[in-house]
Amino acid sequence: MEIEFLGTGAGSPAKARNVSSLALKLLDERNALWLFDCGEATQHQILNTTIKPRKIEKIFITHLHGDHLFGLPGLLSSRSFQGGNEPLTIYGPRGIKEYVQTSLRLSESGLTYPLKFVELNGDGIIFDDATFTVSCKRLDHKILTFGYRVVEKDHRGELLVDKLRTEKVPSGPVYGQLKAGKTVTLPDGRTLNGQDFIGPAQKGRIVTILGDTRKNRRSIELAVDADVLVHESTFAADETKMAHNYYHSTSEQAAQVARDAHVGRLLLNHISARYNGRGAKELEREAQRTFKRSKVVRDFDIIDIPFKK
Amino acid sequence: MEIEFLGTGAGSPAKARNVSSLALKLLDERNALWLFDCGEATQHQILNTTIKPRKIEKIFITHLHGDHLFGLPGLLSSRSFQGGNEPLTIYGPRGIKEYVQTSLRLSESGLTYPLKFVELNGDGIIFDDATFTVSCKRLDHKILTFGYRVVEKDHRGELLVDKLRTEKVPSGPVYGQLKAGKTVTLPDGRTLNGQDFIGPAQKGRIVTILGDTRKNRRSIELAVDADVLVHESTFAADETKMAHNYYHSTSEQAAQVARDAHVGRLLLNHISARYNGRGAKELEREAQRTFKRSKVVRDFDIIDIPFKK
Ligand SMILES: [Zn+2]
Ligand SMILES: [Zn+2]
Repeated sequence: MEIEFLGTGAGSPAKARNVSSLALKLLDERNALWLFDCGEATQHQILNTTIKPRKIEKIFITHLHGDHLFGLPGLLSSRSFQGGNEPLTIYGPRGIKEYVQTSLRLSESGLTYPLKFVELNGDGIIFDDATFTVSCKRLDHKILTFGYRVVEKDHRGELLVDKLRTEKVPSGPVYGQLKAGKTVTLPDGRTLNGQDFIGPAQKGRIVTILGDTRKNRRSIELAVDADVLVHESTFAADETKMAHNYYHSTSEQAAQVARDAHVGRLLLNHISARYNGRGAKELEREAQRTFKRSKVVRDFDIIDIPFKK
Repeated sequence: MEIEFLGTGAGSPAKARNVSSLALKLLDERNALWLFDCGEATQHQILNTTIKPRKIEKIFITHLHGDHLFGLPGLLSSRSFQGGNEPLTIYGPRGIKEYVQTSLRLSESGLTYPLKFVELNGDGIIFDDATFTVSCKRLDHKILTFGYRVVEKDHRGELLVDKLRTEKVPSGPVYGQLKAGKTVTLPDGRTLNGQDFIGPAQKGRIVTILGDTRKNRRSIELAVDADVLVHESTFAADETKMAHNYYHSTSEQAAQVARDAHVGRLLLNHISARYNGRGAKELEREAQRTFKRSKVVRDFDIIDIPFKK
């Protein structure tokens, strides 16, 4: 599980940072990628990565501001042009469907794959399967905006095959029963408890990805105990008033959310072009004063999200 | 008068060529730029040029395929963000207004400048003022597509002030009358004919910019006597069947249009990613066999369009 940042800037594209998009790479977990936001030229950024558009399984849009949205029709068309056949689901605030469908209809862009929409109207679980649960909550931005919490289900322990072999348990259907945790009696009369032959369970990982937002309680709720929190940092620590007026957060406010939610790492994005290389470092230092494990990310940064030890 | 190519590729963006857009730079003529087509990331391309988005006065869209269109909402928003106040007019096939307005409405992008639409339904003159006339004709593509002919009005000759001074004609309102070509009688009794004091007129330039199209008669009509014809070249000379099936042209067909219309220069764009550096050179050679002054353009090429000698 990795996050690859495709655009870490705010508002308008700049040479140093493109507008918002990131890929949650779940290649080991489900041989798929999930995209969060899709600013203009996200597909151009992807040309400089190893990401294959046809592997994008879901796209989560935090809000419909152009710098998070305007790359979507082009990406969908190119995914089709490149022969993507797998279904794709788009999650986002109400209006996302009209935006995409109008763009595709007027440009007469037929897609080679089924496209599904899930329009969000309130907080709750929006996706759940055997391996992941995704929930969303409304944030505090100028336009209807959601943050997302991606929870990986715990991995059951592996069957300790070596131990079974050492104890000379013949392979066969009994292995499956032991793996399921059952107690079985062998032909030779021994009784084995599956629990003794299963390694330790692995706690699933939690990734919280917020859209643009003022500091607010629901950001913390979404981020509780997350391994990684991706949070905007549009303004510097001393610009709380500006941040409030423009419905954004400061570096320090992002760090407060990370601290109060006890997250593992804080990744700061949505960096204004006013903060060039050195300015961005300063935003990072400001956040680190409140929450040590803070980092301002750049386009094409890849962040690994390991299992907890 | 110059053309700066911002995207010269076909279909999907590639590293070497972005999707379609070009700027007709009329800085001396009207301190403005006209954009033709606006594929995704046109505003990103502009970041690598000297073009100021607020100087874009008109945008002409040839057709609503995504690779000619999807950069428009982002460019309009950034023009606003960068403080553009001057009105902007968008010309394009019916549907262009719904596309732009839906994108701006759902993304809640307010603009700082008045935006006007001229939706095209048929052939004819779509703009005319003291310095330029623009007309359009429908082309032969899979979707409603227009080509544009930009005709600069002839520049009247300059008043030959040095000659008037040599002949000791006192300056005053009489200069204006002479410049207007009138015959005037001076206080000293001399009679002067304005025609004798006006330098040679300069023929206005003609630029024809076509969208995607099969070879067809109206392309030639639009291009007659143009100084520069910009024509797509999606396929190689031996792919006439493919070109026909996909509603595009070959290099050779573009050259035939240029030859039959007696244009000054042919600039070939909309180059498929199947033709890399060497392949593009081959397209150029194919065109040159039919029309010598042919050139395959690349992103960021700037082509000067001088007055005829
Ligand atoms: Zn926003
Ligand atoms: Zn087309």
